[in-house]
Amino acid sequence: MESSCEESKTPNWDVSLLEIRDRLSEFAEVRGWTQYHSPRNLLLALVGEVGELSEIFQWKGEVAKGLPNWSTADKEHLEEELSDVLLYLVRLADVCGLDLGQAALTKITKNARKYPVARS
Amino acid sequence: MESSCEESKTPNWDVSLLEIRDRLSEFAEVRGWTQYHSPRNLLLALVGEVGELSEIFQWKGEVAKGLPNWSTADKEHLEEELSDVLLYLVRLADVCGLDLGQAALTKITKNARKYPVARS
Amino acid sequence: MESSCEESKTPNWDVSLLEIRDRLSEFAEVRGWTQYHSPRNLLLALVGEVGELSEIFQWKGEVAKGLPNWSTADKEHLEEELSDVLLYLVRLADVCGLDLGQAALTKITKNARKYPVARS
Amino acid sequence: MESSCEESKTPNWDVSLLEIRDRLSEFAEVRGWTQYHSPRNLLLALVGEVGELSEIFQWKGEVAKGLPNWSTADKEHLEEELSDVLLYLVRLADVCGLDLGQAALTKITKNARKYPVARS
Repeated sequence: MESSCEESKTPNWDVSLLEIRDRLSEFAEVRGWTQYHSPRNLLLALVGEVGELSEIFQWKGEVAKGLPNWSTADKEHLEEELSDVLLYLVRLADVCGLDLGQAALTKITKNARKYPVARS
Repeated sequence: MESSCEESKTPNWDVSLLEIRDRLSEFAEVRGWTQYHSPRNLLLALVGEVGELSEIFQWKGEVAKGLPNWSTADKEHLEEELSDVLLYLVRLADVCGLDLGQAALTKITKNARKYPVARS
Repeated sequence: MESSCEESKTPNWDVSLLEIRDRLSEFAEVRGWTQYHSPRNLLLALVGEVGELSEIFQWKGEVAKGLPNWSTADKEHLEEELSDVLLYLVRLADVCGLDLGQAALTKITKNARKYPVARS
Repeated sequence: MESSCEESKTPNWDVSLLEIRDRLSEFAEVRGWTQYHSPRNLLLALVGEVGELSEIFQWKGEVAKGLPNWSTADKEHLEEELSDVLLYLVRLADVCGLDLGQAALTKITKNARKYPVARS
């Protein structure tokens, strides 16, 4: 079926930062982990995950877009590490009381003004 | 107006990763920057932004949740750096051909199984 | 014996960057690993080790100087991760053809000029 | 003079970690900065410098050993960032009360056992 094929291409990219934030917040709450989620603890956890992300790429030399030669296992490993970075980033913004979604949209607009499209 | 007041509290946490992805993709496209957006280039750019994020916190000692004593300028600086990390992370996942939203939800579910809530 | 006690305190802090550089260079050479030691590969390996270093500190809150409450095992783990960062840093400078020792001394002198000691 | 020529090739790679440690320790002492040099503050400062190091390499694609096409200014910038990482790393080990030189030599020996040289 065409529609399901198209759906399977981007079904969840469509998740909102709000949903991720709320699921993480509840996750920490029910486990009694909020006490450990200070800003600097979360920041160092984020740095740790960026390290794991880098390790995936470290001995590979330049990597082509779309990862044409990567195994499914390697891609799943990469998805996990990208996710871990995202989850700590969202959680860090949340405990800092900041609106990461709003901030991201503001930054995109600011970048657009900073780097105007050249007219031919 | 009350409703607008409440709206202004979390209007954009509700942005989807898909919208951010598409805006970044178009941003790079119209500026002819896609040629520079190889996976490892974007990864190093991400590491650079994590460094800038860390610099904000480096001499502060432990930081309280909600950043009670931070100036508006410091909070805006933090929002910018958090955003920069997010934007490169989303862009990196996109050029790798991975669905970061789906991956994040999958990871949250996996973590929930890995760390079950203790029953009283 | 006093002298041995004093010796055991700082026996090897006295190692030179040159010795570390040469041992790493020979290590890579005899194992046929120099082909993998491109600047960006080594940089990403360094970032990976900084991540592992951060993971040691991530859930601890503020940590006192001298690590008074740390176990011997935790201290040895920390020594390993600090070393891994150092080894990749020295190796990165070496493959870039730069003199890290000279550069470090130059930077210390530059910092001394930038931040003069306040006179009472 | 031949000897001076050879000397000028690697005059300061020969600096010891002990000398760097002691100069940094005195630097912080006379400026009243030791109060800010807690382990986690220094670790975040280190991460900040690793970010600046990564920024130098971020849009370059793969980089050849010896940096054949880099300007003198770019090489000096790289030397500064490599140095900054080293200085914070040495300082972090020092305030943790650890012997980074000994630890590095121990790690090299451990790696040699872990990755034995293949015999032909």
